[in-house]
Amino acid sequence: MALGEFALIESLFRRPQDARRGRVAVGGGDDCAVLTVQAGEQWAVSTDTLVEGRHFLSTVDPEALGHKALAVNLSDLAACGAQPQACTLNLTLPRTDPAWLQGFARGFHALADEHGIVLAGGDTTGGPLSITVTVMGTVPAGAALLRSGAKAGDDLWVSHPTDGGIGDARLALEVFRGRARLCQAGFEAARQRMERPQPRVALGLALRGLAHAAIDLSDGLTGDLAHVLAASGVGAQLWWSALPRSRWMAEQPAEGQREALLGGGDDYELLVAAPAAERQTVVDRAAACGLGLSRIGRIVAGAGLKVFEDEAAGHAGTGAWPSERLPRGFDHFLSGSTDP
Amino acid sequence: MALGEFALIESLFRRPQDARRGRVAVGGGDDCAVLTVQAGEQWAVSTDTLVEGRHFLSTVDPEALGHKALAVNLSDLAACGAQPQACTLNLTLPRTDPAWLQGFARGFHALADEHGIVLAGGDTTGGPLSITVTVMGTVPAGAALLRSGAKAGDDLWVSHPTDGGIGDARLALEVFRGRARLCQAGFEAARQRMERPQPRVALGLALRGLAHAAIDLSDGLTGDLAHVLAASGVGAQLWWSALPRSRWMAEQPAEGQREALLGGGDDYELLVAAPAAERQTVVDRAAACGLGLSRIGRIVAGAGLKVFEDEAAGHAGTGAWPSERLPRGFDHFLSGSTDP
Repeated sequence: MALGEFALIESLFRRPQDARRGRVAVGGGDDCAVLTVQAGEQWAVSTDTLVEGRHFLSTVDPEALGHKALAVNLSDLAACGAQPQACTLNLTLPRTDPAWLQGFARGFHALADEHGIVLAGGDTTGGPLSITVTVMGTVPAGAALLRSGAKAGDDLWVSHPTDGGIGDARLALEVFRGRARLCQAGFEAARQRMERPQPRVALGLALRGLAHAAIDLSDGLTGDLAHVLAASGVGAQLWWSALPRSRWMAEQPAEGQREALLGGGDDYELLVAAPAAERQTVVDRAAACGLGLSRIGRIVAGAGLKVFEDEAAGHAGTGAWPSERLPRGFDHFLSGSTDP
Repeated sequence: MALGEFALIESLFRRPQDARRGRVAVGGGDDCAVLTVQAGEQWAVSTDTLVEGRHFLSTVDPEALGHKALAVNLSDLAACGAQPQACTLNLTLPRTDPAWLQGFARGFHALADEHGIVLAGGDTTGGPLSITVTVMGTVPAGAALLRSGAKAGDDLWVSHPTDGGIGDARLALEVFRGRARLCQAGFEAARQRMERPQPRVALGLALRGLAHAAIDLSDGLTGDLAHVLAASGVGAQLWWSALPRSRWMAEQPAEGQREALLGGGDDYELLVAAPAAERQTVVDRAAACGLGLSRIGRIVAGAGLKVFEDEAAGHAGTGAWPSERLPRGFDHFLSGSTDP
């Protein structure tokens, strides 16, 4: 990359106000960024790569992409109940397009500022477009929310906007693919959910010391729940009618709803297992974060995952859905396999 | 990526012995890795992306590539005087080639084990081949070696193998490009320097509290020195005859030597500014690490970089090389510009 291009990228991503802010003792521009740590805390680290054509289309608004590249990583910190502190950004770019870079930087920095997270370093190189973000956050020692703590009898919760649900990101994707239809307003709303996911950082912090286990929904409800079940050595039931859905989702054909709600990814909501005795506290804390939290099932002893029509059917243990009503790929998880 | 491919990658990169080793309280497999921190320390973080066709050829030995992807990052920790602790690995792969992945993992893990560093998480996705590694290390608070501490009067040092020098990685590249010739033994030695750089971690640790500034040579001697000069607000002189060179380098034509020694990148040796009063201590500490350390110049007041034939000429301040004797691209740095 020519020196002028470096200068442009540097001007966009190295911000004077970031040089020594928050935990940053030495900012980008040295061989390493140096972060201050405090006694009694642990550092939570997560990283994700987004590749053009696989995780996003070349036509996506760069500002939305900058937002999403950071959001999907912050969502991992949220799922651990960690306070975001710093991040690094590795950009591989096929060309230097100032307008594209400015848009990307705007989306990235806006979300970083919202969460008080500092861009502490990174790398820019030429090549096929891909974006790797690594985030670092802090938790009091031993307080991280893990996938492995779910216990039989726990309530199973999923977060969502107070006026929305899960699965809308998948619904938007299906519209792009020509396999689903939405009115203009519904499409715009679903597209926002796909392109501008909101990491549930405040909720993750609020559930520390309360939830037994948490994960963020990136692969889809059943796939991510399977990770929790495998890590915790338990099973679960889901109650179909309890799954939160937007009004556009509620208007979709049954099969489309099943695919989007049970199988759809890219929601970045939190899936949480918490003791039933704390039910009201859990709801109150989500409300304090301005979020809906729906009780969608429960953790049971044993292994595997069953879907029932509603809570009553689940408690009776009768009428578990046959596999042909479940989205393709779901069978795998019914077996209680530990494959990711 | 299909589930079988995930399982293969997981089996190669998630090692049971890494799950809770060193600073890892929670290893890969949860939303975040969780790292233990201790009072009074800071965390140093660095990240680099290697892209096929730009940083390595598609034909490179995957084991060497696994080594190098981690080595170039450990070199940044070395330059900060940080103790390596943990890393993350993001692999973007065009296909799942078990033999290639096994080789890559072997090279990566061997170097990780040598430095006691734990692979704490990562991401694998499909797409054009690229590799991002992020490393995390620890330093006592305030003890990190930075680029910004060089002072007028400091000695300028560069590390190297006791029987070698700098610039050999560039020399190997020039042979690949058909622009230089080496005997078979010389080519193999130079190629090792290019493909298997050895991060100078022990030397970085040994120079903590002693050196005023350090940087690792990734872009080339003059380019990296320019970063130190800009960050420290000083100038420097280099002494041509003092630059350490392998016997194969010494046999190269003068112009080739100048390009490789002054401009060549990918050395991953440490360039160090240290007080002249500590000269013997500096040498002793490098020797204790089994490394050569050559005094190649000195830091001066003002800005910019001058090359002299030898130390005597430098001290006399006469006979600075004219720009036409310097490698192309060098002029830029003579101006004392702060552009990277």
